[in-house]
Amino acid sequence: MSEPRAADETARAPEGAPTPPAGEEAEIPPFGADRALSEGFVDSVAAAIEAADAEQLHALCDELHPADMADLLGLLHEDERVRLIELLGGGLPAETLAELDSDIRESVVLALKPEKLAEAVADLDTDDAAFVLEDLDEEKRAEILAEIPVPDRIALHQALDYEEESAGRLMQREVFAAPAYWTVGQIIDRLRGSDDLPDRFYEVFVVDPTFKPVGSVPLSTLLKTPREVPISQIMSDRELRLIPVTMDQEEVAYLFEQYNLISAPVVDESERLVGMITVDDVVEIVHEETHEDMLAMTGVAAESGLSDSVIETARFRVPWLVVNLFTAMLAGSVVGAFGATIEQIVVLAALMPVIAGMGGNAGTQTLAVTVRALATKTLTFSNAARVVMREAGVGLVNGLVFGVLLSLLAGGWSLFMSGDPDRSVKLALVTGSAMTINLVIAALAGILIPLGLHRLGADPAVASGIFLTTVTDVTGFFVFLGLATIVLL
Amino acid sequence: MSEPRAADETARAPEGAPTPPAGEEAEIPPFGADRALSEGFVDSVAAAIEAADAEQLHALCDELHPADMADLLGLLHEDERVRLIELLGGGLPAETLAELDSDIRESVVLALKPEKLAEAVADLDTDDAAFVLEDLDEEKRAEILAEIPVPDRIALHQALDYEEESAGRLMQREVFAAPAYWTVGQIIDRLRGSDDLPDRFYEVFVVDPTFKPVGSVPLSTLLKTPREVPISQIMSDRELRLIPVTMDQEEVAYLFEQYNLISAPVVDESERLVGMITVDDVVEIVHEETHEDMLAMTGVAAESGLSDSVIETARFRVPWLVVNLFTAMLAGSVVGAFGATIEQIVVLAALMPVIAGMGGNAGTQTLAVTVRALATKTLTFSNAARVVMREAGVGLVNGLVFGVLLSLLAGGWSLFMSGDPDRSVKLALVTGSAMTINLVIAALAGILIPLGLHRLGADPAVASGIFLTTVTDVTGFFVFLGLATIVLL
Repeated sequence: MSEPRAADETARAPEGAPTPPAGEEAEIPPFGADRALSEGFVDSVAAAIEAADAEQLHALCDELHPADMADLLGLLHEDERVRLIELLGGGLPAETLAELDSDIRESVVLALKPEKLAEAVADLDTDDAAFVLEDLDEEKRAEILAEIPVPDRIALHQALDYEEESAGRLMQREVFAAPAYWTVGQIIDRLRGSDDLPDRFYEVFVVDPTFKPVGSVPLSTLLKTPREVPISQIMSDRELRLIPVTMDQEEVAYLFEQYNLISAPVVDESERLVGMITVDDVVEIVHEETHEDMLAMTGVAAESGLSDSVIETARFRVPWLVVNLFTAMLAGSVVGAFGATIEQIVVLAALMPVIAGMGGNAGTQTLAVTVRALATKTLTFSNAARVVMREAGVGLVNGLVFGVLLSLLAGGWSLFMSGDPDRSVKLALVTGSAMTINLVIAALAGILIPLGLHRLGADPAVASGIFLTTVTDVTGFFVFLGLATIVLL
Repeated sequence: MSEPRAADETARAPEGAPTPPAGEEAEIPPFGADRALSEGFVDSVAAAIEAADAEQLHALCDELHPADMADLLGLLHEDERVRLIELLGGGLPAETLAELDSDIRESVVLALKPEKLAEAVADLDTDDAAFVLEDLDEEKRAEILAEIPVPDRIALHQALDYEEESAGRLMQREVFAAPAYWTVGQIIDRLRGSDDLPDRFYEVFVVDPTFKPVGSVPLSTLLKTPREVPISQIMSDRELRLIPVTMDQEEVAYLFEQYNLISAPVVDESERLVGMITVDDVVEIVHEETHEDMLAMTGVAAESGLSDSVIETARFRVPWLVVNLFTAMLAGSVVGAFGATIEQIVVLAALMPVIAGMGGNAGTQTLAVTVRALATKTLTFSNAARVVMREAGVGLVNGLVFGVLLSLLAGGWSLFMSGDPDRSVKLALVTGSAMTINLVIAALAGILIPLGLHRLGADPAVASGIFLTTVTDVTGFFVFLGLATIVLL
């Protein structure tokens, strides 16, 4: 209570960030107001690299949290990155390697001295070690594995044998398990005597004689319980979810999120405990998978990152754009088919992108909501019919609102320009009806495209934005120009 | 080792899901292959509600995990939901309330008997209790708070005073802290004697005499360490991030993800410890905030959920569509301005949606990548200039690829139709140049729109998809029709 009030707000910013490195030369605060590394800090690192000032670089970087150091590497040019690693002595702390973004990981790993890399990899839990090595080519990987002590090497080989994005790849093999008849005291004594424990863990898994997990005890429960109590009395299986090594990481993330898990046991095909997945790895996957949905909707391959080269990036984006070129030409050919109509009533050419564009955006809204609902499993086959009806309803309401609005605007404008009430009413009717119909179809396409992809076992997000705009363009043009041809000519 | 091989794969599915309820009447497995509640299970619950069969409902629901029970409520019609709660006796387990989706929370809470609700709320940690009550109107909330014992009620009032989506609202006030001079043994003894501990916790926070957090000790470290060691020797401040009560939940999620936090101390403006945030709450926020970006890009207000009524949903989506109507009319008026050109060369009407549409989709790809990079802070002001240049480069590469492609297609088709080589070459040149220019502009718009919104302190995702298609439509039409007017007329 005697503590003086903290100084003013700005002096404390960024809140939650670590204090700046203590070194005398590090005068620029490493973090900006947005808690990211500041422009000034990154510039001073780049300047020190330019000057080949190793001492200054150590002063700037040594106190950085591994996650921030990994970010710093991502913010530098590729050649600066390589120079920085050289100037720091050819090595990086093990934890920094585990935090690298996947698009710069390979270039960093290749810049490290092999012995320093092997040393760092041996230091990591198996999941992080596998993550560091997974992108390397066979030869390079073998070279590094050869430098790692045998037991670690075997564990790593096994980890790398699991498929990428599987639970087996995500798990660490370091795990603490105990039989149900042990007491709390026995467990604590064992923990104090052991030096082969995971770096951090949150639960003790209880296993039967075949090493199958049958329950778990959170460490907080263990600490609250007297020494003589057997763990069979305090363990629970309600929170226990056995994760098969083959499970996809997206499913793993779903289970963690759904059941608020902190860690979970991974089992082989005989349900024997072989490892553990912890929530800190899952947080990143939740983020990644959700972002993947966002990117996939627009037809971007998710491996694409900010550090890829221009050509590489273009390559990731071109495939769906090629598809889009042909679907757009399909839409264009619909317009072409009504060339005679447009030639006679050229105002149609100005109105048709309004109708198609509104359909595209309204449909994309439905699409985003649907992709999200499928990912969170709030949309399942058990309520799909109801949700489709509801979206169609929303499309109809929006369609009527915007149909009326646009018909008034188009009709009024036509009356003002031509002074022909009969023709203006007809144009208003055609425009309004086309808008209403297109928004209903947009809503249906927005939900049926991802649902259909999901039913086919595909990713419901993939390129769905491109399919959707095709539907809304084609039907928008066709309905509008078709109606116009019938009513106005 | 003597365990027989598990039966075939399908018999064990869904892996990771709990075993079905033990009740005799529950013959349908509650989970489908996708680990979501199965259609058959939801139907049988609906049938039991229809038949007002309370016994059957207990058999079906009592063994469900709270998270699955909350999902079940979300999958039912609103009236079924209310009837189910009545048939189950007007109450729900406290944990189920904490797991409800926000769009059904209010209707569930209002269906509960006030005394059962008060009982459940008193059972929850403060963050979950505040979550349950936050949407209720003043009167209803006061009524329920009046039934809660005084100390809990005060804590809840304080929690509800913090802004929604702030750290204060997210934290639980139940937290365990110890002074640095305590030994491991003292802490364990204190934990065993205490009955006011958080349900689950993962670290002991070490505080100075003013109750300011100065370090933390993971429980696993505590368990590995002999009793006589003082915690000052094993505590670390490297992983310690003080979260101010006012911090936005998105920032909280960023810190957890960046620094792999499992729990973090929340402090008031004097940096005194007032609560704790745990990672399980953060996992959901990461998911939510990322999805919010996806929805915001399309102009959907994020509060919108699948259980809202048609009118309510339409209301969430209309505002940005209104904006879109006017921006689309802007694009339409560009076409209108070139009416004379189109009247003479009607093929332009068929080509212009191709150019505008390709720009829209390529720009949306850049947009999605940029929004993601801003959210993960891999795009910051320190590398913005470089990333903008890179995206412009990608736009140019794509623009050249698709410009050449489309010009060949358009020129070839024109030659085939008209047999006029001079005119066909001109059309090809106009079409190709317009495509190239529009894809470069699309790439720039895709990165500059979210960056600009971010620089202005706004959400970089909000309605950016609508702004983007406006830019790509307007420039697509203008450049193409403008060039055509100059070259072809």
